This record gives sequence, C-alpha cells and structure tokens, in this order.
Amino acid sequence: MRQSRLVSTTWREAPADAEAVSHQLMLRAGFIRQLAAGIYTYMPLGRRVLRKVEHIIRDEMDQTGAQELLMPAMQPAELWQESGRYSAYGPELIRFQDRHNREFALGPTHEEVITTLVRSEINSYRRLPVTLYQIQTKFRDERRPRFGLLRGREFLMKDAYSFDIDEEGLDQSYWAMYEAYKRIFSRCGLRFRAVEADAGTIGGEGGTHEFMALAEIGEDTIAVCTHCDYAANLEKADSGQPKHSPSILSEVPDIEKVHTPGIRTIDELTAFLNIRPDEMMKTLLLKADQKLVAVVLRGDHELNELKVKHALQASEITFAEPDEIRSASGVPVGFLGPVNLSVPLFVDRAAAEMATAVAGGNEADYHIRNVSPQRDLAGCTIGDFRNVTEGEPCPRCAEGSLTFHRGIETGHVFKLGTKYSEKLGAKFLNPSGQEQPFVMGCYGIGVSRILSAVVEQHYDESGIIWPEAIAPYHVHLIPISVKNEHQTGVARHLYEQLQKMGIDVLLDDRDERPGVKFKDADLIGIPVRVIIGKDAEQGTVEYTERRTLRKEAIRAEEALERIRQRFTLFSGNAN
Amino acid sequence: MRQSRLVSTTWREAPADAEAVSHQLMLRAGFIRQLAAGIYTYMPLGRRVLRKVEHIIRDEMDQTGAQELLMPAMQPAELWQESGRYSAYGPELIRFQDRHNREFALGPTHEEVITTLVRSEINSYRRLPVTLYQIQTKFRDERRPRFGLLRGREFLMKDAYSFDIDEEGLDQSYWAMYEAYKRIFSRCGLRFRAVEADAGTIGGEGGTHEFMALAEIGEDTIAVCTHCDYAANLEKADSGQPKHSPSILSEVPDIEKVHTPGIRTIDELTAFLNIRPDEMMKTLLLKADQKLVAVVLRGDHELNELKVKHALQASEITFAEPDEIRSASGVPVGFLGPVNLSVPLFVDRAAAEMATAVAGGNEADYHIRNVSPQRDLAGCTIGDFRNVTEGEPCPRCAEGSLTFHRGIETGHVFKLGTKYSEKLGAKFLNPSGQEQPFVMGCYGIGVSRILSAVVEQHYDESGIIWPEAIAPYHVHLIPISVKNEHQTGVARHLYEQLQKMGIDVLLDDRDERPGVKFKDADLIGIPVRVIIGKDAEQGTVEYTERRTLRKEAIRAEEALERIRQRFTLFSGNAN
Repeated sequence: MRQSRLVSTTWREAPADAEAVSHQLMLRAGFIRQLAAGIYTYMPLGRRVLRKVEHIIRDEMDQTGAQELLMPAMQPAELWQESGRYSAYGPELIRFQDRHNREFALGPTHEEVITTLVRSEINSYRRLPVTLYQIQTKFRDERRPRFGLLRGREFLMKDAYSFDIDEEGLDQSYWAMYEAYKRIFSRCGLRFRAVEADAGTIGGEGGTHEFMALAEIGEDTIAVCTHCDYAANLEKADSGQPKHSPSILSEVPDIEKVHTPGIRTIDELTAFLNIRPDEMMKTLLLKADQKLVAVVLRGDHELNELKVKHALQASEITFAEPDEIRSASGVPVGFLGPVNLSVPLFVDRAAAEMATAVAGGNEADYHIRNVSPQRDLAGCTIGDFRNVTEGEPCPRCAEGSLTFHRGIETGHVFKLGTKYSEKLGAKFLNPSGQEQPFVMGCYGIGVSRILSAVVEQHYDESGIIWPEAIAPYHVHLIPISVKNEHQTGVARHLYEQLQKMGIDVLLDDRDERPGVKFKDADLIGIPVRVIIGKDAEQGTVEYTERRTLRKEAIRAEEALERIRQRFTLFSGNAN
Repeated sequence: MRQSRLVSTTWREAPADAEAVSHQLMLRAGFIRQLAAGIYTYMPLGRRVLRKVEHIIRDEMDQTGAQELLMPAMQPAELWQESGRYSAYGPELIRFQDRHNREFALGPTHEEVITTLVRSEINSYRRLPVTLYQIQTKFRDERRPRFGLLRGREFLMKDAYSFDIDEEGLDQSYWAMYEAYKRIFSRCGLRFRAVEADAGTIGGEGGTHEFMALAEIGEDTIAVCTHCDYAANLEKADSGQPKHSPSILSEVPDIEKVHTPGIRTIDELTAFLNIRPDEMMKTLLLKADQKLVAVVLRGDHELNELKVKHALQASEITFAEPDEIRSASGVPVGFLGPVNLSVPLFVDRAAAEMATAVAGGNEADYHIRNVSPQRDLAGCTIGDFRNVTEGEPCPRCAEGSLTFHRGIETGHVFKLGTKYSEKLGAKFLNPSGQEQPFVMGCYGIGVSRILSAVVEQHYDESGIIWPEAIAPYHVHLIPISVKNEHQTGVARHLYEQLQKMGIDVLLDDRDERPGVKFKDADLIGIPVRVIIGKDAEQGTVEYTERRTLRKEAIRAEEALERIRQRFTLFSGNAN
C-alpha cells in the first residue's frame, strides 16, 4: 500500500473525551473514527487489524471442530419474550418496530436464535455434540459508552454455542473452547489471565471463566495468587476459610455502651476511640428483592453484593434508604449495630471470627464495645459476603497471597446448562428414545475490544507497537526523500520484493519532511521499519524495530532476508 | 468436515411460501433458515459459500487499489437529515431511538457516512483519487420481502465509494469498478449482462450500469441487442429513432367522428372497429408533481414512467384519477383523445410518425378517425416516452433487434457526481488552492443475493449444482456403508489426503441408506463426488461430477490426482 493514498490522517492530539490510551492512540494514528457515542468506523488500518484478529479466531475455532454460521441482527421480540429476557434485558436492548408494527430487537447476543435454530435442526443424540460460532456485529445501548472500542454500542463479537447430551459432554466442549481462547489471545499478543467469574445475569449454573487482558484501564479487578494458578474476578474471588479459634466466652467482657455523639463513619469512630478499622464491625442494611436484611462485615472490609445476592438467591440487592433504616431499626444512619436487630443477620466469616468488636449501638449517638459474635450474634447466618483484600491468603493453596490486577474482559466462557433449552423447549432424543433438553455452553470474544486491549498493552510515548500477528502491515518502508531517485529506486525494489514474499508492506511515498514521516510511523506502530536514506546509493538501508527504535545500517538484501525469516509465519493472514 | 456432525438438515419439501427455485433449494439443502420474513440465518453450508464469495470480492477490490474499511450500521438521523434523505427514504429506512431519545437509522446504504468521513480525512487533491469499500450488513424494511435472499430485510452488501477531483477521474474509477465487477461475477460462475440503467432515486447524473444475472425469476426486464453489445434495463432502454417520412398533408382525409357507445378499452375498440392496436393512439392523463399532462402512445405501446419523469424533470409521476380526467377534459375515462385537449401534450415518437390514427374523441361514446399527428397535434412535444418492445431495432446499431431477458440485479455501479459532496459540504483544495466538492461514485454488490442468483442458474431437478469457486466443499466423499471397514478405510485415506492438499472435503460418515445419502448429495450440490462402495477392497471408487451425475470407476489414487488438478486453483479461498 502506498501511504500517499491511504485514507488515514494522523492527529497531533486526541480529543479531550478520549480517556483511555488505546482510544487516544487509535484515533491519533487513524485506526478508528467516531460516528456517534460508542459507534466507530474502522478505517483501512483498523480494518486490517480487525481482519487479522478475525482470521486467528476462525483458525482456532475451526480447529476445535466448531462450525461457522451467521445469524441475523434483527430478532423478533417474541423470541426474547419466550426466553423471558425481553423485559429483563432493560434499556441496553435496542428495540424498534418494523413497518407492520411488529416488535424487533437488535441482537446483543444470540442464545434465543441459536437455541430455537438447533431445536429444529437436531433431534437425536447421534448428531451431538456440536459447537456453532459466528463473527457478527452486536448492538448494546450502553448507558455510558466510553474508552473507544472497549465499551461501545455497536461492536464485533465472536459468539459460540455448544450443544451436548450431558454435563460431561458440556465439560469437554467448555474446556475445548477454554483452550482455544488461550491460544487466540496468545496469538494476538495479549498478556491475559483466565479467571473464575460470576455467572452474571445471563444465567445458568456451573463454571464460567473470564479472559482478562491485564491493563490499568480495565474495569474489572482480578485477584491472582502469588503461589498457585488461582485467579478470579474480585466479584467472584472467595475469601479463605479463617482459622477459627473459639473464644472462651467467660473471658469476654460484657457489652459496654460508649457515648459517640455525631460519630457516624468508620473513620470518625476509629479516630474518636483510637482503634483500628479491623477492631470494628459495620452493619449494612440491604434490601434483597424488597426484603430487609443486615450484613455485618469487619470494619476494614468491603461488601460483595454478588455474594450476598447468591447466598439469598435474590434477583436484586440494593442499599436501604436512610428512612427505611430508621423505620426498620429506629436508629439513625451511622449507629446501626448487629445486636438485637430485628432483621435477619448475615455475618461475614471474618467478622464472625472476631473475639470482640466495636459496633453500632442501635441508639442515636451510641456505639457498643465488646460485641462477641459467638455470644451476641447467635442465630445469625455466617458466610462469605465480602470482597477479598490484597495480600490475604489464597483461598485455594493458602500458601500464596492474593495480588490485585486490573483487567479488560476480552473473552468469556460459560456453562449455560439447560437454562435456554428448557425455556425454549429445545430437546433431542437420547439413546433410550426419551426427550432431553440440550446441555449448552456459550462462549464470547470481544473481537473489536481485542484491538483496544492490545494497544493498552503495547505502546510507548510515541505511539502504538503492534504485535506481529495482528499488525496492519508487517513492514514500513520510508524513503527519506521521494525526490531522490536512488532512494525511490531502492524503495520500489524492496516494496516489490516484499509483496512477492507475501509480506504486508506500507510504503511512505509522501512528499513530507523526514520528521513528519518518522512521527507518523511511530504513532502507527508497524513492527519493522526500513528507512531508505542517503546511503541508498550504496545499497545500504536502516533497519529498525518499532519496539526498540534502534537503527542498524544493513544491506538492502539483508533487510529482505531478515524480514522473510521473521514474517513468513504470518503471511496470508489477511485473506 | 464429517457430515454426521454438520448442522444441516435436508428437507423433502420446501415451505409453500418459497416461490423461487433458489429459495426452495437453499432451504431444502440446509443452506439458510428463516428467522422472520426476509431475515435469514446462514447455516454452516451457506456461510461457507458466502465466505468464498466475500473472498472473491475482496480479492478483486484489493486489486483495483480500493481500501477496505468498516462503517457502522447505526447511523445518527442528523446525517440523513443533512443529506435530505431522512424523509425521502420512506418506510424502508428502519428508525429507532436510543435510550437518550436520540434518533437513529439502520443503514440501508452509506453515502452519508462515507462522505462526512472523507470530508474530514482528505483535504487536498494530492491524496486523491481513493476508493473505499466495505462488506457489511445492510437493513432495508422491504414492504414485501420474498424469494429468500433475493429480497430480504437484512442482507450482506459490498458497497464502495470513489472520490475524485473531476469527472475524468470519476470516469476512470467508475470503469475500474465496472471491470472488477465483471471479473467478480464471472469468478462466481454467474451468467450476467452489464446493462445501462436508470439513475433511480439515489440521484446524481451520468452513467450507471446494473449487473444483471440472467434468470427467469428476476424482477427486472432487460433488453439485449442480437447484434451489438447494447443491453439496457427496460426502464432505461431507448427506442430507436424512427425513420420518419412526412405525409403529404393534402392527402390525409379529414377527421371523422365514430360513434363507439360504451367502448372504453383498446381491446374493445380494435374488435369494434376491426383495426389493429398499432393503428390507434392512446392518450394517458398523468400528474407530474401535481401538474396535469397528457402522454400519447401508439396503441400497442406501453408507457415508460421514468422517461416521462426525466423529460418533465418531475420528482413524481402518477396516473390521474377518473374524476380528475373528467374535470380536466370533460370526458369520461376511455374517450380521451389528443386533439384539442387543453393540457400539455407529450407524444411518443412512434405515435408521432403515424400517418393517421384512431384516437379518443374527447366526447362520451365517440372516437375519431384520421388523426394526423403532423396536422392535428401541432405544438406538442415529441420524445421517447415508451418501453421498447421485443423485436424492435436496436437503438445503437440499428442492425440487430432487441431480445428480452429477465435479470436479477446483483451489482450496480453509479456516478454520483457532486450530489452528496455538495449537500454535505465535502470539499478538497485543488492545485490552485481553491475548494472543490469531491466527484463521487458508488458501487454496490448484493453479496448474499449472489447466492440466490447462482442457484437460479445452476440447478437441476435433483438439487443445486455449485460452481467450483464458491461451492461449500469441493469434494463429497460417500462411503456406501460406514460399517464396512474397507470402505471406511479408503474413505478416511481419501479424506486425509484431500485435506492435506487443501481441498475442502465433506465426508458422509452417516449411517444412512445409500439412497438417502445420494439424494442429499444431489440436493447439496458439491461439484465432485467420490463414492466408496463394494470395490473399495480392490482400491476402486466411483468418480462423479454433480453436473452430469455420470459415474466412472477409477482407482482411488487417480481420483486424488484428478481432484488435485481440478481444484488447486481454488484452495485456500475460504480463509
């Protein structure tokens, strides 16, 4: 490709609303352009990267035996009503009426379509298992689209769905996808972790893993063990079983009221009483599907709403309003405590193992000391209701400790079980001739999101540094002066030879100053650069890796040979 | 691929509402499934064909130097308001509001998006010309979706847009696309004609050609010369210049009134007066943008509304209602005539050259004889207002005559000129530093429609016969009995060898009767079939071309060699 014709403009500055580095760099380097909030055009450079990612995904999917199909974006509302998700999905689901006033949704996901499709195509265990996938445009009306391709409203996804006769089959299909995902993300050049995750609203039971690209901008926190291979999303990470050594109750002092006028927060209380947060308990009043419950945590711990939600099998958890707290307990905010509270009590294990604690006194301007969970909170439910903290022991091996990382979710594998097949009546005949619902899994990759995640991991202060396998071009040829015929001659020779070798090459044939060309090249981030300057007359060029920007004067023919060796592996990827 | 796992069911019958052969066969053979009216899932077999078509298109587009990008389906309504098409597009444009009540459209085409994109990316003639393309899903809410993929509501298109500095540049870009389209359709195995077409509502001046796949089901009629290469859509085809030999007016008899009580139609009149339709004139009262005009045609000719529309530069042409006819002329329907009619008169050339004619008398129950256009219709406008008829002389060479064919529009190339660039203010600086609007062209291919068009041309009573280049698989291996170890051994050997050769191969490993397998194979239509039967023990197989279904017993190794020679060209297409 000749750069003078490439439809791509580089920008000196990114717009002020581009917060993420990947968003800034992909805009500045001309890979994407915004059409509306969360809606982007992939410019020729961006499209090339996207195609290479698509190719890697297809290659790995096909190798697992998964079959590609293509389902529509327009989905009849009836399908979503049948599965119960039409209302559950909320405003993220884009809805419209066709000219005959029939309701449609723009698919954010395809469980309904694929399940009803397989329902009518496969009727016997003999034709199972199968896994189907597509690479297709999804729509999700995010409340707050941001970070460029990381959270958009129209985006490219690879979604796959497996159909098995039983849990054991699902397990095989699931791990086949899991392994394929590891290969896909590795080939794309991502540093990632596969982490245990929460099932979320998509539903279903059993295992689920998220593939998290490690990056500061990531919206998820993941906890990773320093010793074993345990890794989990913070919302899912289990706190270890505390080593509980029961107190000798006769030695526990009696509860003692402390006057704490106007002291409402943990910080105020620790300062006022000169104690540490981990010597306190905090009591949170929550509504689980409109039913009031109290959750008790150690003062230095954070509530994990999902854990509470699962423990209570609630579909929604919200914090109680101050007036609800007052009417339930008669206590103003800040003085709520677990002792003699007339709502069901759920005590986190770390709080339950405290010998004594300071807690709210259930009376305005009073706290209490010497609360012994063992003695004073009899009848409560003890469980894991908090977020793990950095540095605490690993819940799996107990030898390592947990470290925290930020991650971008680029993939998700999920055991759906029979959730959709039962709702949509998708059944097959088993060997004894009986009807059984398909046992399903679903598996997503954010294809366009991979671009952002890769850039978040591969850049320096001058621009992007694309990994070889998905770089828009392998080699950037830069003749210093397009008016110098030696330079243009050598450049043309290299250009033609590289193209013959199947190398993707961009030739900067623009009549620009060298500084402008180098700046653009740094920004665009093509892995190998060959500068054709004044020594071209002697057949010498400068060979540079974008990663190091170290220049090395070598013969033009040697540059060709180096490039051949380096890239033969990747040629033809863009087809 | 092992057929036992292929997600594809063959049907004995197509649903009653599938009228087109291609629709029936693609449903029956399991290539597509309907999700809603005009909305289809491409099953694994169909997706493979689609991918091969996409590959051919990308290959030819890239060879012209066009650059691929990917634009969003969600388009802000403001863009369409700016171009004036938001209301003009009517109910075919799918509209919805996002969660913030902002209006969006689902793109049926991308002129607005690409024009505003290039407006901000390219500011100088130095970076022109460029052609950009995408392969992307389009939405069009057809009033009456039908014929499967031929007229759907969600479909895959390749759309390209060229940007030039002047008409001459546009001409080059246009013909480069024209030639690429010829290669694309040829490679897909289509019999087609590039025909002159009408500009339609998309607007713009200058040339436009449609690429018509010849097929009876086609919704367009095209006129093709038997002698030269003239071919045009019926709505566009010019009628030849008649050889006008003026009458000697003194020899023309006077107009004579004829009492024709209750005779209102051409058929009734020809019977009543015992004359031929081509001895009559018919007078049609039309409204051109609400203004009444009369068009006069020879009795055997048909009105071409588009020609009238263009001649009058009207944006809409409709037939006048009976009461409008009566109030304008005082004449009931059926007796309208051109003589002394008080509305502007437009006479088709074929009618104008008649020596005398019978026409309506402008009086209830009366016609008139001996109407001489030369004498009686002075002051009228003469022009080409009719459809050409089959058999009439070619308007270009005059030596051949026109034959009629039915065609499916699979491609369209179009000179837009500055229509969009002016409306959307998309300008560049010319060499003298002045602003000039881009001169644009647009170029579409119905990617999914190609599948239907190909099937309409390639089938027999047993099923589809795919052309090699886009067949879902090249070779269909059919062991007669999967319980016979000789047969399965040979089948497995061939399967592995063919895969190593890069041949796409489908192995029918199902435990089915041979009749079922052959029937399915006929329906699916893979070009080469190798049947492994009782002679497998001696290393002999049956080699069959789907097109002929002639069987030939050959050595297994020879089958491999034949296949190698035949398909090496196409391997790797599906990547």
